Amino acid sequence: MRTQVAIIGGGPSGLLLAQLLHLRGVDAVVLERQTKAHVLGRIRAGVLEQGLVSLLAEAGCADRMRAEGFVHDGTLLSDGNDMFRIDFVALTGKPVMVYGQTEVTRDLYNARAESGAPTVFCAENVTIHDADTETPHVTYDADGQTRRIDCDFIAGCDGFHGVSRKTIPADKRQEFEKVYPFGWLGVLSETPPVNDELIYVNAPRGFALCSMRNENLSRYYVQCDASDDVKRWSDDTFWDELRLRLPPDQAAALVTGPSIEKSVVPLRSFVTEPMRWGRLFLCGDAAHIVPPTGAKGLNTAASDVYYLYHALVDFYESGSVGGIDGYSAKALARVWKAERFSWWFSSLLHRYPDQSGFDQKLQAAELSLLRSSEAAQRAMAENYVGLPY
Amino acid sequence: MRTQVAIIGGGPSGLLLAQLLHLRGVDAVVLERQTKAHVLGRIRAGVLEQGLVSLLAEAGCADRMRAEGFVHDGTLLSDGNDMFRIDFVALTGKPVMVYGQTEVTRDLYNARAESGAPTVFCAENVTIHDADTETPHVTYDADGQTRRIDCDFIAGCDGFHGVSRKTIPADKRQEFEKVYPFGWLGVLSETPPVNDELIYVNAPRGFALCSMRNENLSRYYVQCDASDDVKRWSDDTFWDELRLRLPPDQAAALVTGPSIEKSVVPLRSFVTEPMRWGRLFLCGDAAHIVPPTGAKGLNTAASDVYYLYHALVDFYESGSVGGIDGYSAKALARVWKAERFSWWFSSLLHRYPDQSGFDQKLQAAELSLLRSSEAAQRAMAENYVGLPY
Repeated sequence: MRTQVAIIGGGPSGLLLAQLLHLRGVDAVVLERQTKAHVLGRIRAGVLEQGLVSLLAEAGCADRMRAEGFVHDGTLLSDGNDMFRIDFVALTGKPVMVYGQTEVTRDLYNARAESGAPTVFCAENVTIHDADTETPHVTYDADGQTRRIDCDFIAGCDGFHGVSRKTIPADKRQEFEKVYPFGWLGVLSETPPVNDELIYVNAPRGFALCSMRNENLSRYYVQCDASDDVKRWSDDTFWDELRLRLPPDQAAALVTGPSIEKSVVPLRSFVTEPMRWGRLFLCGDAAHIVPPTGAKGLNTAASDVYYLYHALVDFYESGSVGGIDGYSAKALARVWKAERFSWWFSSLLHRYPDQSGFDQKLQAAELSLLRSSEAAQRAMAENYVGLPY
Repeated sequence: MRTQVAIIGGGPSGLLLAQLLHLRGVDAVVLERQTKAHVLGRIRAGVLEQGLVSLLAEAGCADRMRAEGFVHDGTLLSDGNDMFRIDFVALTGKPVMVYGQTEVTRDLYNARAESGAPTVFCAENVTIHDADTETPHVTYDADGQTRRIDCDFIAGCDGFHGVSRKTIPADKRQEFEKVYPFGWLGVLSETPPVNDELIYVNAPRGFALCSMRNENLSRYYVQCDASDDVKRWSDDTFWDELRLRLPPDQAAALVTGPSIEKSVVPLRSFVTEPMRWGRLFLCGDAAHIVPPTGAKGLNTAASDVYYLYHALVDFYESGSVGGIDGYSAKALARVWKAERFSWWFSSLLHRYPDQSGFDQKLQAAELSLLRSSEAAQRAMAENYVGLPY
């Protein structure tokens, strides 16, 4: 098979890139290691920046999001006692969109299916060849046969554990990492959200987050040990712990119910540089991971997609290699700002096992500054709603 | 002797408090352990917030500052390659005043001498008695005799090493501290400043600061080891190191000359809580220390003076104890914000011996955000020019 762009990974970034390219007449094949049902079974956050919302609209995949998603004009922060609000729209002119990442992926799959463009599921042993030449190709196994795709470019959208990053020789890349000394225990339940907006809490017992998917599907998190066993947490234990971290009025208003999903995720920051090696371009989690605080994961993948999409279209439409050559530096400049924000927001809201009294006082002072200073709120809001591409 | 307020410490905070009280008819005695010449020989920073400038005006000590001080509308930040500017006036409506702390102290001494109010120099073995009763008193030795001052209140303005803080029983106070893994090597030289405004630099070789006292008196600093011996640094070694950290155009423009003062200072954050014990009130360095980055030391002492001055005047004029009872909480709320800013600004600008590649990239991203985001600049400027009292 021959295509213009081989896209490794059928998650939201690969699919979004594929769909955007398709609409501009650039052919792509999407290779996904799992089944479609598996991809759609992944639970992920769902706070979308305007930049991503616009890209989805450009990809023709915004109708259901506009109908079913929730536009949030602000968010709530709490020290466990009371709350204050950051008004995104008043501060930056921009809201965020609450719409599950799973739903984004579903909409993109539907669009891809409608377009008739090829997506290969259950592609095993995906291998990238000759990415540092002008004639790269990809091989994979399916139905007991090894198949080959010749292409001009390869987009590595296959996440942190994918083959794309590892294809770049170790001496050609540099990795940056930070592991946080805690995890998040998350629960999904078919209950009405405790509040219309997200509540981020730094309580004496640790971080908590009240989020939601829709009016009868809530997503709650509490900070836990990174090595915590989810089996240790019964539903009752979880709800009790969450209540202890929420401001009293929210704890009283909390509607609980059986969990339909419960898991512990570690928190990690990771970046690899550069994000391009020859004709291979890394996108999203393949190149960088953020802790979930502030929901920058998919949104930062989206800015990579934006830069790569324009670089490839420029190449095919005008022969310009400027976008391609500039991709890594441009993407990384924004990636590092998202990494900084995610680190800062995580640092502000979690209790650290080795935190000194001084550190804790600084954290409280920062939260208090954010409560009282419009300038501090605007600086936060600008990052939360998404820096410009 | 009897007075209303015994002020321990004849540095700028004690003198400012004394002068403000004097003008409102409240009597105070200032006790200073050293000679006046010694106090005026101390070299300190000289970037004054508007709040302090206003207090000095209220104290009748602003004339020489207004004539000889330099109003700075902004400051420069550099990564060692090039510079960008934070325009304080455009962002916050407020400039800062560059006027040496030694000069502030001199002006306050002159005002105090003119007022005829008592200042005792060379007061040895100052001891605070019965601060937790309604009838406190202070004893000290001078001219071979022990003397006693009975008073209503005691203001502890005697710095980090003074007796005031230590008078509060250890089980009645809590201390918070952070020691930074580097120091500042500072040089004073009779040369024209390299730039009209201060330049803060985070260069690959470490932090540097170009500051000044007047048009022919420059103050420069480079980050060094906290344990560095000043003897290891000849003038030439210092100027060479400074040049290596400045952007090329500033390095080329730097005018060097013999140092007239050279010293290494450690960087430390420190806060004690509460700032009141009975009728003893801590002010300035007696209660809190900041690293010098951002020049918050004297300015934060000034906000303590402001709160205490108003609390005491309220008490004497109307019998109200609200200001006195609220002093510690009010002062500490602002102190912690200044501690946060000084820590943040230090963290942004120094190279840490144990800094990971990830940490360094975050630092660069923060500097880059500050360069590109007006909201980030405003949040910084608002703290630099001074949060409201």
